[in-house]
Formats: sequence, C-alpha cells, structure tokens
Amino acid sequence: MKKKLNIALMGSGFMGKAHSFAWTLVNKFFDVPYEPVLKVNFGTDEDITREFAEKWGWEEISMNWEEVINRDDIDIVDIVTPTYIHKDMAVAAAKAGKHIFCEKPCAVNYAQTKEMAEAADKAGVVNYLNHNYRRVPAVAFAKQMIEEGKLGTIYHYRGAYLQDWVMDPNFPLTWHFKKDLCGGGPLFDLSSHSVDLARYLIGEIDAVTAVNKTFIEERPLPGKRAATFTAGGEVNSEKGKVEVEDASFMIAEFENGALGSFESTRFASGRKNYNTFEIYGSKGALTFNFERMNELQYLNLDDPADEQGFKTILVTNMTHPYAAWWAAGHVIGYENTFVHAVADFLKAVEKNETIEPNFHDGEKIIRTLEAAALSSDEKRRVEVSEIK
Amino acid sequence: MKKKLNIALMGSGFMGKAHSFAWTLVNKFFDVPYEPVLKVNFGTDEDITREFAEKWGWEEISMNWEEVINRDDIDIVDIVTPTYIHKDMAVAAAKAGKHIFCEKPCAVNYAQTKEMAEAADKAGVVNYLNHNYRRVPAVAFAKQMIEEGKLGTIYHYRGAYLQDWVMDPNFPLTWHFKKDLCGGGPLFDLSSHSVDLARYLIGEIDAVTAVNKTFIEERPLPGKRAATFTAGGEVNSEKGKVEVEDASFMIAEFENGALGSFESTRFASGRKNYNTFEIYGSKGALTFNFERMNELQYLNLDDPADEQGFKTILVTNMTHPYAAWWAAGHVIGYENTFVHAVADFLKAVEKNETIEPNFHDGEKIIRTLEAAALSSDEKRRVEVSEIK
Amino acid sequence: MKKKLNIALMGSGFMGKAHSFAWTLVNKFFDVPYEPVLKVNFGTDEDITREFAEKWGWEEISMNWEEVINRDDIDIVDIVTPTYIHKDMAVAAAKAGKHIFCEKPCAVNYAQTKEMAEAADKAGVVNYLNHNYRRVPAVAFAKQMIEEGKLGTIYHYRGAYLQDWVMDPNFPLTWHFKKDLCGGGPLFDLSSHSVDLARYLIGEIDAVTAVNKTFIEERPLPGKRAATFTAGGEVNSEKGKVEVEDASFMIAEFENGALGSFESTRFASGRKNYNTFEIYGSKGALTFNFERMNELQYLNLDDPADEQGFKTILVTNMTHPYAAWWAAGHVIGYENTFVHAVADFLKAVEKNETIEPNFHDGEKIIRTLEAAALSSDEKRRVEVSEIK
Amino acid sequence: MKKKLNIALMGSGFMGKAHSFAWTLVNKFFDVPYEPVLKVNFGTDEDITREFAEKWGWEEISMNWEEVINRDDIDIVDIVTPTYIHKDMAVAAAKAGKHIFCEKPCAVNYAQTKEMAEAADKAGVVNYLNHNYRRVPAVAFAKQMIEEGKLGTIYHYRGAYLQDWVMDPNFPLTWHFKKDLCGGGPLFDLSSHSVDLARYLIGEIDAVTAVNKTFIEERPLPGKRAATFTAGGEVNSEKGKVEVEDASFMIAEFENGALGSFESTRFASGRKNYNTFEIYGSKGALTFNFERMNELQYLNLDDPADEQGFKTILVTNMTHPYAAWWAAGHVIGYENTFVHAVADFLKAVEKNETIEPNFHDGEKIIRTLEAAALSSDEKRRVEVSEIK
Repeated sequence: MKKKLNIALMGSGFMGKAHSFAWTLVNKFFDVPYEPVLKVNFGTDEDITREFAEKWGWEEISMNWEEVINRDDIDIVDIVTPTYIHKDMAVAAAKAGKHIFCEKPCAVNYAQTKEMAEAADKAGVVNYLNHNYRRVPAVAFAKQMIEEGKLGTIYHYRGAYLQDWVMDPNFPLTWHFKKDLCGGGPLFDLSSHSVDLARYLIGEIDAVTAVNKTFIEERPLPGKRAATFTAGGEVNSEKGKVEVEDASFMIAEFENGALGSFESTRFASGRKNYNTFEIYGSKGALTFNFERMNELQYLNLDDPADEQGFKTILVTNMTHPYAAWWAAGHVIGYENTFVHAVADFLKAVEKNETIEPNFHDGEKIIRTLEAAALSSDEKRRVEVSEIK
Repeated sequence: MKKKLNIALMGSGFMGKAHSFAWTLVNKFFDVPYEPVLKVNFGTDEDITREFAEKWGWEEISMNWEEVINRDDIDIVDIVTPTYIHKDMAVAAAKAGKHIFCEKPCAVNYAQTKEMAEAADKAGVVNYLNHNYRRVPAVAFAKQMIEEGKLGTIYHYRGAYLQDWVMDPNFPLTWHFKKDLCGGGPLFDLSSHSVDLARYLIGEIDAVTAVNKTFIEERPLPGKRAATFTAGGEVNSEKGKVEVEDASFMIAEFENGALGSFESTRFASGRKNYNTFEIYGSKGALTFNFERMNELQYLNLDDPADEQGFKTILVTNMTHPYAAWWAAGHVIGYENTFVHAVADFLKAVEKNETIEPNFHDGEKIIRTLEAAALSSDEKRRVEVSEIK
Repeated sequence: MKKKLNIALMGSGFMGKAHSFAWTLVNKFFDVPYEPVLKVNFGTDEDITREFAEKWGWEEISMNWEEVINRDDIDIVDIVTPTYIHKDMAVAAAKAGKHIFCEKPCAVNYAQTKEMAEAADKAGVVNYLNHNYRRVPAVAFAKQMIEEGKLGTIYHYRGAYLQDWVMDPNFPLTWHFKKDLCGGGPLFDLSSHSVDLARYLIGEIDAVTAVNKTFIEERPLPGKRAATFTAGGEVNSEKGKVEVEDASFMIAEFENGALGSFESTRFASGRKNYNTFEIYGSKGALTFNFERMNELQYLNLDDPADEQGFKTILVTNMTHPYAAWWAAGHVIGYENTFVHAVADFLKAVEKNETIEPNFHDGEKIIRTLEAAALSSDEKRRVEVSEIK
Repeated sequence: MKKKLNIALMGSGFMGKAHSFAWTLVNKFFDVPYEPVLKVNFGTDEDITREFAEKWGWEEISMNWEEVINRDDIDIVDIVTPTYIHKDMAVAAAKAGKHIFCEKPCAVNYAQTKEMAEAADKAGVVNYLNHNYRRVPAVAFAKQMIEEGKLGTIYHYRGAYLQDWVMDPNFPLTWHFKKDLCGGGPLFDLSSHSVDLARYLIGEIDAVTAVNKTFIEERPLPGKRAATFTAGGEVNSEKGKVEVEDASFMIAEFENGALGSFESTRFASGRKNYNTFEIYGSKGALTFNFERMNELQYLNLDDPADEQGFKTILVTNMTHPYAAWWAAGHVIGYENTFVHAVADFLKAVEKNETIEPNFHDGEKIIRTLEAAALSSDEKRRVEVSEIK
C-alpha cells in the first residue's frame, strides 16, 4: 500500500484542470512512490470552485488560502492562481513546511522569485516550477541527445513562441494586460518558456538585447465577459490602458558563446500555440514545434554528406523518455506533460531531492526577462547580472 | 447526483488500459448522464488481472467470464479480449441484457458478426464497435465538412494504414498470425479501420479487388516472450506456419461511384501507426495522417484559383468536434479518442439509441474484408454481396 | 572543337519547348562530346512552327515529316508529337539510320512498341524513351542508394501520380480522350511514368490487378479552344464520347516478391503534378514527391532505434547525381531533367551504347499498361506475360 | 526583328554562369523588346575567362575592365565581380552611359552605394541591383497579395537566412572574410537579401538592434585551394584573422510600426540556402522558404474560424507571376529567377524606366546593414538615419 500524500490545489481554472488531471492519472502510468489524495481546492468563487471540486473529486473546498496552506494534513501545495499571488502563497507554503508545485511564470518580478527561492531553501521543501514543455518526450529526448554530445558545440538557439489570441482590438483588458498582476505580456507568458527551454538545453544566458512592442494601447474594460471573450461578444464601451507588450523580440548571448533569440508575440495570425526552437551545433541540429509535439527533427553531421537531412523522429517509442503511455506511433498530447511533471515531482519528494526547474530556475528566468524589459526600455544591450 | 452504471471489463491488456482510462476520465471532460463504476475486471491470468485492477481501481476481479457477464449488477460489458472470443462474449452479454462496448475488429469472420448483430438487436441493447479513429476530432470534423457538402461529389478515397512491427523474421508466431484467433493479418487489424473510416466518410463499398501477400511464411513459436517481443531477445528454435497475410492491397468501388483503395501492411519500414486517408471530391479535398492526428489538410476549390492549396487546419479550436479538452493549439493524443467514444456511448445508453459504428457496421466491415480475402484467393474482383 | 550533330525536332508544342531548352543548354552544364545543332523543326501548322523555330533558333522548318527524317544531314530525330504517330516516325527514323530521342508514352499499344524496338535494334541506332523523372537528381540518387543495398529486400512500392486538370465536365474532348490517339487516359499518361520508375528502382512486374474508372462519359467537342481550354471559356454544345479512363488504380506484383500499387487520376482536386512514390525495404525506406523534386525522404533502419525517422535530403549537393548546376540548396526545376536526359543520350550516341529507358523499356511498360487495361475489363488479375 | 543590345559581363564565376544563363534564355520564355548579344566577358584569369566565354558564347574576352566598359558598342554592363569593385565599375559604366545590371550586395559600404546611385542618376542610365529572390514567383505573388490588402496591417516580419558552408574551422580565409573586399559576413551576404525582401514586402526600416558574432577568429590562409575548398583538402598551416562576423541577429523596427527580425548565419548545421520569411498581419499571414521556392504558405483570417490553416500554394499556375515556363505543378528552380530579372530589366531599358531594386535600394539596404554593424559594436539600438 502506497503512502498517501494530501494535495491542496490553489485555483480552479484552466491550469487547475490540467493539474487535477495529472494528480488523478499519475499512478496509472508511472511507478510513483505515493498515492496523491485530492484533499482540498482553494478558489475565489464558491460556486465555480464547488463545481470544479466535485467534477475532479477534490474532497473539500475553501475560500481561505492561508488556512488551506497551513492545514496540518496538507503535504503538497499546488499553485495554479494568477501570477501575482504566487510569491505570497509559495512563501507561506514553505513556512508551513509544505512541498510546492507551482505554475509558471514564477512571479511578477525578480525580487519575488528571490523571496520564493529563499523561503523554500530555508524550509528545505521540495519546490517545482512547472515549465511543462521540458517534459514533452521529444524535448526530454533532445536534452538527452545534447548531453550525449550529439550536437557538439552549440552555436545557435532560435526560440519562438507565437500566438494570436489578442489580435482583436476588442479583446478586453483582462489581468493579462496589467503589469502588477502578470509581470509582463508575451515576454513573461511565452518567452519565459523559451528561456527555460534554452537554459535547460543549452545553458545560461549572459546578456540580452530586446525590443518590446505594443500594437493596441487601449482595450475595452472586461465588463461581463473578461476571461470568456469570444469574437462577436458584447464590448464594454469604457477602455483602459494596456500595460504590457504585445510582442517581445530578444537576442540572447549565452555563457557558452552561442548566439540565440527568443521571439514571442500574441499577434502572429494563425499561430495558436506555436512554441518552437531550432538548435544548431558543430555536430548536428535539432528543431521542435509544440504543435507537432510528438516529433523531433534531427540532423546528424556524422551521416554521409549526401545522405544528410533533417529527420522527423516520432518520439513515441517505448524506449524514449516518459514512455509509459501506449505504443510507438500512438501520439500523446499536451496534458500528458503534466502527468510527467507530477511523476518526477513525487519522486523528488520521496527522496527529498532537488527537482528542476525550481524557484532558483525561476529566479534566473525572471531575471533574464527583466533584463530584456530593461533593454527594450533603455534601447541597449543589458547583462543579466545588471538586474539586482 | 448522476446515476451509476456498473462496468465489466473483459480483458486487461493494452486495450484494457485505454478503456479504463476512458471510463475514469469521461466525466471530467464531457457532460455525460452517468457515473461509470469500474466494477469488475475479467482476466485469464489472476496475478496480472489483480495488478491491473488495483492500478485502475476496478473493484473486483474474476476469472470466469460467463459469470461476470451474467451478474445482475453489471450494466455494461466492455470487451477488450483477442478477437476470437468477441462473438461469444457479445452474444452472452446481449442475452443477459447488457449494453455492449466492444473493441475492433468485430469478429474473426462475417458469420460471427451477423450473430452478434442479431443477438444485440433481439435483446435491444446498445452496442458499440470501437473503431476509435472516427472520434479523432480531425476525422469528425472531416465528416462534418463532407456532410455540409464541402467536397461535392466524391471521386476518390485513398486509405493506407502502414506499420512495421513484425518485419523481424524472429518476431514470434503470436495469436496475430493464427487465422482462427484474429481473422486475418493487417487486412483485419488495419484495413478494418480504413474500411470503417471510408464507410463513415464516403459510403458503402460495392466491390473489391485485392492482393494479399505474406513475406515471412514461418516464424519461431512464441516460447517465453510472445507478446513482449523485443528485438534481440531469445528466439525459440521451433517454428510454425504463419496463417495470415503480412500486407493487403485492395481497390474498392463505392456505391456512389467513387474509386478507392485500402493498403495495409506490417512491412512498411519506419511507419509506426501511419493511418492515413486522402479524399478527393468535385469541390475540394481532405487528407489525414494519424501520426499528426490534430491536423486535417483541406483544399477548397472555391478559393481563388491562384490561392488554392492544401491548408493545415489544427483541429483544436473550442468549436471543433470533441472540444472539451484544453485550448486552441493544445494538441491531444491517442487516448483521448477513447474518452470520446465512451462519452458518446453513455449518451446513447441514456436514450437507448443506436450509436455508430455498431455490430451492423461490424458486419459490413468484416464482409468487405472477407470479400477482399476471397478476391486475393481467387484472383478476381469480388462483389461484397457475394459473401453470404 | 566539338563535332556537330544535327537534330530534327518532330513537333513544336509543350514538349518541343522542353526539348529545345535541353538541346540549347546541355553544353553549358554538362561535358558532352557533341555540339547539337538545332537543324530543322517539323510541325503541322506552318505559322506556329515558324514562330516556334524562330524563338528557339531552329534553322529550318518543314511540314513533311518523312522528308525531314530521311534528310542526309540529320543525325538525331527527336519525337515530341502526340503518341499515335511515335511508331511511324520512330520506325522511319530507324530505317534511315538516325538515333532517336522519343517522348513518352512509347506508343498507343504494345504491338507498336515491339515494332519500334525491333526497327531500332535492326538499324543499330541509339534509341531513348524520355521518361524524364528518372533523371530528377533525387530519383537518380534513390536508384544509387537502392543499388548500394541501402534498402535491403524491397517489400513495397507505392506509386501515385495525381492530377486534376480535366475535372471540369466542360473540359473538351481533346486527343487525350481518344484511345487511338493516346492509348489510354492517366493509365498511359501518368502510370506509364510510375511503371517506369518502379521498374528502374525495383525491378520487373509479373502481374497486375486493376480497376479503371471514367467519371465523365461525354464531353463537349473541342470546337475552337481544344488544347487551350481555360475554365470559363466558350463551350461547344455538341458532345462526343470519352474513350479513356479518368482514373486507374492498379496493384502490382513484382518479380522479386514485392507488392506494389500504381494509382493515377485526373480527378484529384488540388493535385497538379503530384508524382510520388514510397519504397519500403528490409533496411530502410525512401519517399519522393515531384512537387518537391529537390527532396528525397530516407529512413535508415541502421540508425539507432530511437533516432530513426524519415529525413529530408536536399539532393542539391555537388556530389549528388547530375550536380552540374549551382550549389547546395540552390534548387532546380522540371526543365533541368530534360537537359540531364539529353546529356546522357549524347554520351550514349558517342559510344553507340544502349541507354535506358529505351524502346525495349517502352515495350515492357506498355505491356504492363495493357495488362492493367485487360485486368480492369475482365475484372481479374492478369499476368503481364498474357499480353502478346 | 528585335533590336540587339550588346552585353559586357564583368566576371566569369558562379554568378557569371547564372547571368549568362539568363541572357541566353530570356527571349525563349519572355516577350522582351531586345535580343541580348553576349558581346564581351571581362575576367582576371585569361584561361578561365576564355573557357567560360567559349562555353557560354561570349564573343570576345578582355582582361581590361575599364576598356570594356568604355567600348562604344556596349549597351549594358553586367557586374558579377566580388563586391569591392562594384562601385568603381558601376560609376565608370554610368559615366560611359551604359545601363547597369549589378549583383548584390550593392557595395562594401554605404558611402560607395551613394556614389553609385548618384553616378547612375546623373547619367540617367537604367540601373538594377540583383536581389534575385524578389523575382521568385512565390515572392512576387506574396507582394501582389500584400498590395491587394490581403494581410491587412502588418505586425511582424521574421526573416532568416541560414547556411552552414564555413563551419569547418579549416575552411580557408577567402575574400568572404576580409571586410574591405566583402563589406561584412552573413550580414552583407545574406541579411542584405532579407532586408531587401522586407523593404519590398513591408516597407522601410527605422531602427535596428543587432548582435554579430564570430565563432572562428582565425582561419588558414587560402593557399592553393581558396574558392574551391572541399572538406578533407590540403590545409595551409599559416593562418590569418577573420574580419567579419559568422552570424548576425538583428531586430528591426519598421516605419509602419511592425516589429521584425533578420537572422543570418553560416553556422546553421544542415541549412544550405535556407532563406525564409514569415509575415503576420491583421488579416492573414504568409511564410516562404527558398528551399521550397515554388511554395507559398498563406493563412487567411477571413476563412471560417474552424477552417483556418496555413495552406501550401504551389505558385506554378499559368496565372501566377512570371508564368512563362511550363505548367501547373511543373516546378522551377533557382536559375529561373535570373531570367525574370533580365526580362524585367530589358523592359525597363526599353522605356528608360526605373526598375527595382536599384542603387537607391542598395543605398537603403547597405545603410541598414551598417546601422546593424554599429548597433552590434556599440551595444545599442541604432536609428538607420544615424548612418551618414
């Protein structure tokens, strides 16, 4: 009989759903040391929270997050709220001695991430920052190949994360446009993933040079439809100021000498969740596109010259990373990455080990994003170390 | 509070896993009228069955399938055994008044499928044959487009289902090579899916002309590794005769005048689960490849001539079929199709309605496959109606 | 100073243009032993022929094909007329001792091709049948790889050649629909290429099983717009009977045991010149699509299992076949294949050697097509050797 | 009878070949007002020049460029030399009243381009700068679509031009690495094309922010193999300093508010001539990759939401730009773009009209590149207008 661990889920939105899925499924596919118990779900709207909790089998609900975090019977705090409150919750959870599973981006600024990392270190709790794309099998396999030296010296990392969901000027001024609530626009939401992947796959970033751009300066206040905006709905006639960029293009210089870029935008018509990278090295190259997440493109310079080409590896073999699901060619989806994250997290909890990415990774990521924002503001190259 | 329905799962292998996943998840994502209860799991190996049942939460296990099917507390019989026993179980379940959810192929021959359909009709139970690829969102969307007339008159259906898992001559003589256990090789295993998709999307097949081919006539007896064959394992020195084809190429003439083909093989090096179709009509064309199951290619002849081209539709919008999962661009996987099937099945059970495909579809599919086998044997075109 | 060879071009249409291009360019890119002289162009319409000849620098024109072929100063007869006259011209040219460069398909039936081959053999002239796709660098490279054993034993050849140019029912009844002028529909026009490629790459075909289909039984007589049909033009109210198929699906059994198919149609909406093949062998696989003619897809089963995938080789290296043009990555086009053919032909002429494909290949190809037509008519498998 | 125009070709290397091809072919495919006469070829090595001239039919050769340019019988000076001498030749040609067809990049610095443009303006000669990728049919079609408003307001231009030909540290120190001979590395060689395409398709660039990077600081002196380097050849033991960047990543701010990037490198393993762009606008998007130069990807936001996707338009219709070649689906290659350029140039000569791009475009392009170099040097954003 596996030991039970009680989970408190902080939030009940889109990410709450993805995390609940993971806690529910993890034991069916991975050999993890615990049985997670969906103990309590914190939410701000009682009706929504109750409905959510019933659907997913959370035993209790609560409207008081501090109480939840400090309950004696809670082992793990899982944070899926809007970004601005991550820090307060994480610090409280650390102080209460709870292990922490936290959605990205880590926090709205570098200072908050430092506080989170310090609190977790001090408390000695396992802390995990859910940049889930690391745990796409194709990405984990890319990592494995790079570590085996198959790319040689890395020259370039070209990351792009393109979406188009706010192109309509009538898309309302939700929290995603308020700097104190979200930290930034696509720079924080999307490039944070790219920076995480680049650090994971290539290494640390020394300096950045960036230009941010806002195409729509004012938007209708949310009114009644806020988060549930769909084209053609009712538009609030009152407008408010957009505080974050709509697009962020960044050039990155890596510690190891590689030259890279991170381009993110919410104005790339037709791109839904186009999270891509290209990596070029002295021995080969890799490319990835999340919208075809089961595939990894690999070029091997050791192949005979006339037989070289980018090959499409379907990363679904039972010997590929995270191969617990079905069979070769039986592709998996977005949600499975959350199960992978939870499985790794539970193993780290058992051994009380560090798992990556964690709040220290969050620190480095957000510091890089702040450097990019400063670069755009001051129209100059900024060394990441300038951000204090 | 939703009414509970007790499920009996007959089998605990690969498909048992996929079905258990679906019963577990269906209520989280779809608004279904029942709460499925994972009541009892029938298996032939007690240890394996027990382990499986515990992992997935099946309340009980049993080694006696007839007893299980006739239990008063069972509402639904879900059959995931090897093909040869489908008929006996389905007929017994029908007689016991249970609704039936059955894996494909329907049975090992046309006669059995007729028996199954008759028994289900007589009992008035809801019966469903799980050709799950119909319930890939991209395929359901293709169906919707065709029904809206977007392809006009259909001229061609080119179906191919290619795999490569038995290319090693040392792959052992498992049940997949014994005609009385499986009905046929890729013709039954793979082309059954293609025929199902073609009937769903285009219509009935009048006549077929086929050539089957066996490349490896004898294989090592299974010995100790049967189902768990991996290259490099121990090979049984004793051999037995392969009774089914390794590849089956078929030309199909459709009732509506379209000319089509179904090509299936287990000897297409590099193809893992390459289930594809191309449909050409007077107004447009569609193509699909399961290995990129979130995508549908569509060519619209109504576009200006110079702007025509196959477009890659990412079928992940919240307005696409089966849009209950995540968000646009957040791709899903193989397993989700089983949840879709269970959701539709439960809705049919509530209303006591026919769902498709069912045993009558199984009849037509297997009849077509038998016609193909006869065509290959007799080296001539065979009308499907010749098969009695 | 290179020896001059005088060319007579029989025809001045689309293919006349492509061949003129090749004779003009061959010396600029390939080291050929002769300087071709564009001596005389035969045509049936004096004005069109004069204009064509002036544009391309043909020194003279003639309206009398027999006279042209029998001129003492002509070394090479290049036939680009409609198919029905190939035989008469080729036989005359052979008798006159001229080397022959002839467009495909070889002739309208098997009997004619035998006559052509016999006449050429008897005269000892070099004869070449221009199935130009063999001389796409990517295809020539595929051949090279197969000959080096990189695919091992071949199991499957899946050829498809899809177009859509006659889908409009008002497309007029040009010579392409009259059996005595063209031999057949897509079977002769398109599958002839597929059969040529399959024989080149894999080997001889023993038996075929085919179904032909005509979707539009009658079409407007050509009236004034015949060959220059464009949608929306004037339609002749008088109609005539279509004598050839609109689509031809064929299953092929190869001498070496491989199972293949050739599917051709003029009713594949959106496909312009979609000439493709997939070859699966015991050691690897290759796929090709002419619309991306600079690319060859290759899967190598010798790669580590987890790194296998179809790679896109850009066949433009200066070490790839026919590498006389530009530089790696500088893609070439349709017309360049004609230059390759002329270059190879001139080298064969110098050494008085056999070049492939030639009229004997034409014999075998047309025999296979006739077997397919018979198979469709008699609704049975036909051995190619049945065609006498 | 068309008027003859005498051409002087300055240079006889790779580009000499491409231009000779174009002068030879232009009249066969395009209705141009002149017959170009391949009069004289200037070269620096008499043997090479003689051989080249004979192959292509240049009537005379010369080792004295000033003499050639000043010959009374020359109408057009076509410059295909290394970059550093463009300015001197172009200015001399303008003074001699010759029309000028000049390879890119325009010159080694902004000052030279100004001199060229002034001299051409003063002389009133037609001058053309051969950024040939504008004349790929797919690119010209993209331009046409943008001008018709099909993309709406442009938000993003993502240009990348990636190659890998100097990754070997033993690739020798040819003129491509000496700043006074070439102006720059990939910034001048590759990004010049990207800047040209972006200006053509989107509009002027106001400011740039760039980072250049050199991976290999020293290389073997050319020794005996300079331009003909192939891996594995003899390496000169003496080394010299590389003076240009190996990679250049640039962010561009456009006059119309769009945010863009230009990334060029010679260290992208596996990329041969990967010249790509993505353009995102309020009504749609376009993407292009030269290695598939016959294709244009187009997303139309006016399509029904659930049917949106990037479609692959095969830009080979007889109604697409530069449709003089073959037929739909009959793809063309790199060299054809040179014929298009010559055809447009001759039409401009006839009407004594401005053609684009010309030396004024060269000015703007090189000014932008100099701004990028300055940005990289000074680690700050640079307005293009700062370059004087």
